Amino acid sequence: RFILLRSNPLCVQIVYFISISTLGFGFLKALKPLGQTQKNLDLFFTSVSSTTVSSMVTVEMGIFSNTQLIIITILMFIGGEVFTSLVGLFFIRSRLKIDLDKIASSHARLASRNPFIIVDRFHLEDEMVTNEVHKHESLSTTNENLRYLSMKYLGYVVIGYILFLHVIGVIGVSLYLTIIPSTKQLLKNKGLKMLTFSVFTIVSSFSSCGFVPTNENMIDFRKNSGLLLMLIPQLLLGNTFYPPCLRLCICGLGKFYKKRECRYLLKHSEKVGYKHLLQRKHTIFLVATNCGLIVVQVTLFCVMDWNSKGLKGLNFYQKLIGVLFQSVNSRHAGTSIVDISILSQAILVLFVVMMYLPPYTSFLPLKYDGKISENSKKMKKRRGKVTENLIFSQLSYLVIFIILVCITERKKLKEDPLNFNVLNIVVEVISAYGNVGFSTGYSCELQLHPETNCENKWIGFVGKWSDEGKIILIFVMLFGRLKKFNMDGGKAWKLH
Amino acid sequence: RFILLRSNPLCVQIVYFISISTLGFGFLKALKPLGQTQKNLDLFFTSVSSTTVSSMVTVEMGIFSNTQLIIITILMFIGGEVFTSLVGLFFIRSRLKIDLDKIASSHARLASRNPFIIVDRFHLEDEMVTNEVHKHESLSTTNENLRYLSMKYLGYVVIGYILFLHVIGVIGVSLYLTIIPSTKQLLKNKGLKMLTFSVFTIVSSFSSCGFVPTNENMIDFRKNSGLLLMLIPQLLLGNTFYPPCLRLCICGLGKFYKKRECRYLLKHSEKVGYKHLLQRKHTIFLVATNCGLIVVQVTLFCVMDWNSKGLKGLNFYQKLIGVLFQSVNSRHAGTSIVDISILSQAILVLFVVMMYLPPYTSFLPLKYDGKISENSKKMKKRRGKVTENLIFSQLSYLVIFIILVCITERKKLKEDPLNFNVLNIVVEVISAYGNVGFSTGYSCELQLHPETNCENKWIGFVGKWSDEGKIILIFVMLFGRLKKFNMDGGKAWKLH
Ligand SMILES: [K+]
Ligand SMILES: [K+]
Repeated sequence: RFILLRSNPLCVQIVYFISISTLGFGFLKALKPLGQTQKNLDLFFTSVSSTTVSSMVTVEMGIFSNTQLIIITILMFIGGEVFTSLVGLFFIRSRLKIDLDKIASSHARLASRNPFIIVDRFHLEDEMVTNEVHKHESLSTTNENLRYLSMKYLGYVVIGYILFLHVIGVIGVSLYLTIIPSTKQLLKNKGLKMLTFSVFTIVSSFSSCGFVPTNENMIDFRKNSGLLLMLIPQLLLGNTFYPPCLRLCICGLGKFYKKRECRYLLKHSEKVGYKHLLQRKHTIFLVATNCGLIVVQVTLFCVMDWNSKGLKGLNFYQKLIGVLFQSVNSRHAGTSIVDISILSQAILVLFVVMMYLPPYTSFLPLKYDGKISENSKKMKKRRGKVTENLIFSQLSYLVIFIILVCITERKKLKEDPLNFNVLNIVVEVISAYGNVGFSTGYSCELQLHPETNCENKWIGFVGKWSDEGKIILIFVMLFGRLKKFNMDGGKAWKLH
Repeated sequence: RFILLRSNPLCVQIVYFISISTLGFGFLKALKPLGQTQKNLDLFFTSVSSTTVSSMVTVEMGIFSNTQLIIITILMFIGGEVFTSLVGLFFIRSRLKIDLDKIASSHARLASRNPFIIVDRFHLEDEMVTNEVHKHESLSTTNENLRYLSMKYLGYVVIGYILFLHVIGVIGVSLYLTIIPSTKQLLKNKGLKMLTFSVFTIVSSFSSCGFVPTNENMIDFRKNSGLLLMLIPQLLLGNTFYPPCLRLCICGLGKFYKKRECRYLLKHSEKVGYKHLLQRKHTIFLVATNCGLIVVQVTLFCVMDWNSKGLKGLNFYQKLIGVLFQSVNSRHAGTSIVDISILSQAILVLFVVMMYLPPYTSFLPLKYDGKISENSKKMKKRRGKVTENLIFSQLSYLVIFIILVCITERKKLKEDPLNFNVLNIVVEVISAYGNVGFSTGYSCELQLHPETNCENKWIGFVGKWSDEGKIILIFVMLFGRLKKFNMDGGKAWKLH
């Protein structure tokens, strides 16, 4: 545990995700699926896809048994950003605690030694110096103590936040399923237990994973606007709207309880070291940016694809909610109420951009930028200079991944150009990088030279790739999950 | 002219390119083409394509008459980066000259007034101060004078550089055409004059435009490795290798002639204000980066497409030179010895990246970065803060353009998906943005529902777009030509 406390957070997270994925794979393998046998690579892919909350699928979700679904639920929960950040917060707090204990014990030692020191007059000056040091230390110790208490408090707030939203969500979805008979029937046909479904869906939504235990993702539920409206807050509050909501919670709680800690948390947000607690100005701009991006998507979607085949049979209200749901999902969750491959290409390109944007993308006018960038400058200086030169920017890595996939799938790109085209590969790679899970899928009808044994399955496009391609995508998912560690890469490349 | 001297360089260049394009369009329109009539939009497109040295084609090049080709040659010459930068240098020099004249005249006035000032003793102190100011001023005036002389000298060097390369090039190509009978016959069949062809090709290569007066671009000359080898230096020295070569010229000339100016130019490269004169370290890294990028392209090309249909019938040596030529062209010139639509998709994606990279992209380790970034920081502060917030990054603009084209061409994207796919649109837009001119073209064989009157033409993919799409691409070409003014956009957007 001491090793963990002192080591590089990037390494810790790499080890964390890989070990969880491997463990998850072991469990999934041990518990036999319904009917068919699954390839090891596909099971591992699913496990990585769950822990990195990507929801890319190479096998149909419907084949997983109830226990396997529970395993996946657990993987999604402990892989979600809010949970992992809570674990990170716990570690920072423990480290601070150890430091504080050390200081306290050294104080105690000093205090016990003091009587012997003040013996002759010569030591008086020494004593004064020591006293001053003490004062400074105790001042900073109080500060550090407050910081420690605030972090402890923050931890409880986050735990409460997670529990509250999950419980509310599960109750809501369960009630909805009980009240609306058509959905109940649907689950029965698929052999799904209601509780499993609601817990799975809520965990999946809150952690922005986007898995749904049915093959067709949310397409079957596209008319259930109530369910979609219930999931939208879960999707937002567990992801792009988490920082503003967390701030709001602390602000609200601070009025009744633990005022000092709350004030510290709100004022010295950056000192706490919790990435999701942003400064006030930043939070406001983040909310504005998120809303703006959703509005842009909804507008373009409505303009281009209001009469699309995917939205057929829905009335005005259902269409609007569906479009909103789809737009909210494109940033990170990746649940889908339409087959995105039949949407117009303009929307697909926009989705690629939205998937690429990291969760806390925000428009931040330069005059507010000063304070925030100071912190990041310090971070930069800590790094070794030589290695920093060799790091590419995120986009360069993505292009390299795309080229690699184009190489591994070169045969099919020639033979089956309507399914295997570069846009679909780009969607798949960026979707994996953004841990979104959108996929254009594969359609037998689009084959130029129809195969006789081709069968349309509810799997992502990646499911039709070669093994090498799948392995590349596993790397991309892990790389995307850890992208926050490489946000300032490519600094050594000058474009002009 | 005074207005020009004092106004914003961006506005000047916008006016410059638009007026030249319009003028060029007028001339092209006035001089009747051979046979067919051309649409006004297509002629204007060709004119913009020439002045922005993009070489995107919406009409076959073969239909232009000899006089029209001469007009295009002139447009390419005065639109090329080396020439426009020379004009810019001339303007900076004129402005400096006016400032120097003002200082000189104010000195003269002071000197003539001085006798009256030194009358009583009380003014002695005053006088001393004035003297000191004088000394400072004269020191800086000497410096400014040296700067002025150096810039004048630099202008002559650049003019010499342009003339020398063009003359050498035209003589070389003419000789080659005379010596090799097969090429002579080829030109005769196409009704081209030898001199027009060599001047056109050399101007086109040096200015990185990439137009070739034959329909098939350089595909007919793919076996003429000698000609390709002659053009490669022209392509490089007029573009990515221009700064190092300019520095080398100054260095070489400085050993014999105008040592003081040369030393100033080499030492205070950034003070001269000529964008193409880079500091020594930067120049070295630029050369290394350029070579590296060419090596990457040649390697991938050889690995993926050595046995491609496009290189059929060539021997080992011819293939190697052809691949080298193609790789050199992908950064900016855009002449082509193969139909790039039959290359593998991995190469196409790599080409998109290469086309996107601005000419002076270089790997520059961070420790050398200090001095250079200081200058750019000053530049940044000069700008208004509010407008700077609203500027997007280059990539965002490109994505917006791509989405717009997807909207204007939405019908054909559905009906003709093998020709109209997003990758081809991306290639076209990035090619226009990078002023390259690569295009995947349009092939009647790829139509899913073959039209009866479809005819394969030697035009770019853009030639089959709707008028709105073409107009968007005209904007993209102009935007790309002026990209150096917006290299630090999007600073107000934080991704993390
Ligand atoms: K997801
Ligand atoms: K060009």
